[in-house]
Amino acid sequence: MLESKITQLTVRDVRFPTSLEQHGSDAMHTDPDYSVAYVVLETDSDAALKGYGLTFTVGRGTEIVVCAVKALSTLVVGKTLKEIISDFRGFYRLLSSDGQMRWVGPEKGVIQLATAAILNAVWDLWARVEGKVRNKPLKTNTSDPAKLISCIDFRYITDALTEQEALDILVKAKKGQKSREEQMLKEGYPAYTTSCAWLGYTDQQLTQLCSEALAQGWTKFKVKVGADLQDDIRRCSLIRKLIGPNNTLMIDANQRWDVNEAITWVTKLAEFHPLWIEEPTCPDDVLGHASISKALAPLGIGVATGEQCHNRVMFKQFLQASALQFVQIDSCRVGSVNENLAIILMAAKFNVPVCPHAGGVGLCELVQHLILFDYVSVSASLNNRMCEYVDHLHEHFKSPTIIRNAHYIPPKDSGYSCEMLEESVQKHQYPQGEVWRAIEQQGKQ
Amino acid sequence: MLESKITQLTVRDVRFPTSLEQHGSDAMHTDPDYSVAYVVLETDSDAALKGYGLTFTVGRGTEIVVCAVKALSTLVVGKTLKEIISDFRGFYRLLSSDGQMRWVGPEKGVIQLATAAILNAVWDLWARVEGKVRNKPLKTNTSDPAKLISCIDFRYITDALTEQEALDILVKAKKGQKSREEQMLKEGYPAYTTSCAWLGYTDQQLTQLCSEALAQGWTKFKVKVGADLQDDIRRCSLIRKLIGPNNTLMIDANQRWDVNEAITWVTKLAEFHPLWIEEPTCPDDVLGHASISKALAPLGIGVATGEQCHNRVMFKQFLQASALQFVQIDSCRVGSVNENLAIILMAAKFNVPVCPHAGGVGLCELVQHLILFDYVSVSASLNNRMCEYVDHLHEHFKSPTIIRNAHYIPPKDSGYSCEMLEESVQKHQYPQGEVWRAIEQQGKQ
Repeated sequence: MLESKITQLTVRDVRFPTSLEQHGSDAMHTDPDYSVAYVVLETDSDAALKGYGLTFTVGRGTEIVVCAVKALSTLVVGKTLKEIISDFRGFYRLLSSDGQMRWVGPEKGVIQLATAAILNAVWDLWARVEGKVRNKPLKTNTSDPAKLISCIDFRYITDALTEQEALDILVKAKKGQKSREEQMLKEGYPAYTTSCAWLGYTDQQLTQLCSEALAQGWTKFKVKVGADLQDDIRRCSLIRKLIGPNNTLMIDANQRWDVNEAITWVTKLAEFHPLWIEEPTCPDDVLGHASISKALAPLGIGVATGEQCHNRVMFKQFLQASALQFVQIDSCRVGSVNENLAIILMAAKFNVPVCPHAGGVGLCELVQHLILFDYVSVSASLNNRMCEYVDHLHEHFKSPTIIRNAHYIPPKDSGYSCEMLEESVQKHQYPQGEVWRAIEQQGKQ
Repeated sequence: MLESKITQLTVRDVRFPTSLEQHGSDAMHTDPDYSVAYVVLETDSDAALKGYGLTFTVGRGTEIVVCAVKALSTLVVGKTLKEIISDFRGFYRLLSSDGQMRWVGPEKGVIQLATAAILNAVWDLWARVEGKVRNKPLKTNTSDPAKLISCIDFRYITDALTEQEALDILVKAKKGQKSREEQMLKEGYPAYTTSCAWLGYTDQQLTQLCSEALAQGWTKFKVKVGADLQDDIRRCSLIRKLIGPNNTLMIDANQRWDVNEAITWVTKLAEFHPLWIEEPTCPDDVLGHASISKALAPLGIGVATGEQCHNRVMFKQFLQASALQFVQIDSCRVGSVNENLAIILMAAKFNVPVCPHAGGVGLCELVQHLILFDYVSVSASLNNRMCEYVDHLHEHFKSPTIIRNAHYIPPKDSGYSCEMLEESVQKHQYPQGEVWRAIEQQGKQ
């Protein structure tokens, strides 16, 4: 099966009209339509083997990512899976460092999101092939540390993590791996919810959703802040009262503030004891986050960021500068599993917990594999660690996430869990799917 | 004329087959086809007023930028020039922070290059309108400091430069402005040449081009390095011999190295006394550049970077961390004049010279305006300052740069100097232009 050749790559623009109900709204993204550039790799295998991948977007602009996926596809089609994974580091660099296309990046923005969609599909394909034999999901594509290391491009990060150091971390974590795997299968990985407190929700919605979540066993809650200080105080106060002093509260400003403004604003929310302030300022501002971290440390508030941190070099600097206390990896923003392996291993070296970003469309499905890998094969710790969860749009996936008692239950199906239902894809294709045609019709009336 | 409404935006993919002769080749871009996404804004003015803008690319991937320009065009078409420039800061943010499209950036990569192309056209349009009345090129669109400041989005940089500080710099530089302007008109702005030593050139080509350049009055030369150390030593030695000890040599690695590798490699080239090492490592690595700067300072070698530095927040950090000693602004990588104003003013505050990146297609035409502005209206200094020049592809422009005795002579025509000859555009449109059809034919033979 590894000999299967990739014969075709298709990519589609799939959008969900979430803005109609203010799901996903925050201080900077006031009307997101959760979307994906959805990639399918077809192969010449007899078993009709396919690979599914996606990258998450929030509406307009998805067509640009689709265009970029098409541009990169010529580097993928015609290769066998074996060719790719026998030099996955080389293949990663082929995509990320094409002598012409790297100019429009490099390794950032649209072209990096497109790289993620394609490589997510390649990892899915690989996992399915391994699964055909051993029925294992992505997190165990390979348990060979040397093989994993060979997927990582260490260019530009050797001053923070050498190949040998990375290997040592993986080898050391072999100890106790079996029991951690069993623990995960039994208990699952701790999650927190962002579904209760989007910025566009009313206090009434917020109260109701929070109460329901508590009843379902949730203990960790994230609140969107940053548009209006008095609103934030009211909302944080309300939620802290609802969840009590012992549950965990996090706040998220989605890049709304300048550096000094962030410090002032968050200081005024300190009385509600948030564990972290997420994305207080520009995602590119390593030194700004370092200043904020330093100012907020005495208040017991950490800084979390990463969902728009575009590559391993940025994460490297955030870690070097002590600019974050929680590393929020994302399954689509950087170069897929390859680059996230590098980031997870750097976080381990710097002893900073990884708490993934998820939500959107398919991000929970994807990132659960990465955080399970982190616990089982790298960090071996749950201390201060949890994975974001948002309960939207899972019904469009063939193997949706399973949450039990506020924990992610490890996926059982082979693959990277991001195959969508074909019917959902067709209905939501933009602009020709029936959902969008109906919205257009309504607009005309 | 300010009341003119923008009625249409067209964008075309224009590529020049420069890779055929290794023009522009460096350690990371081995086969660039210099290209542009070329924007024309049409208006409803009686005078058939148009605005011309572009962003530079190196071949494949230009179609993605074209797609992004189209996505952004809905935010531009229908607006009058007056609406835009009466709140240019707001218009800049409209483009850079659209609630949906910012996800595929923000302010980086493809979407930022597209923003630059559009805003370059808007600045051109504005300059032409001013020129109709006063016949002045872009550098003097407005000489009112407050008006200039109102074009800048200070979001995320107030910890390094406040609006008041920026204003103070401009007001202070009013002194002597008139005589500096006269000086520029007479002598021009000092330039250096990169045309002699692309990585793909033979030693013979290099010797010939260098000798010719010396004869033409050039005194400052840049050499591409980074692929092979022994080659670099031979080439630097050759050029240093050719130009003698008193002329200036700069070296450029185009991001080839890791941090420690950069320090070791450049140390071995120190005997040739380069003024700077340009792009020693990943353009995102502020802290890496700071380490390199610190290590090379005792050797008298500075660090230069910026052509792939994607926004003002990155430049802010490079300055805060003393990670560069030469600020290489680019007219297309960041958000046009608006963002370059912010960068030029930050460089002034941190007292670091601006030495623009140019070359490619149209970059010299554009950036000459910015560096003239820097000298006349901001820094008032030529110390350690010079602007890159490459002598390719100027023949495709309606008002090409004028170089006299290795100096840029200020443009006389109104506008931002990037209107291309329509015939050139049509011939080089990709893939349907006759130049590309001929290459395709040859490939088939």
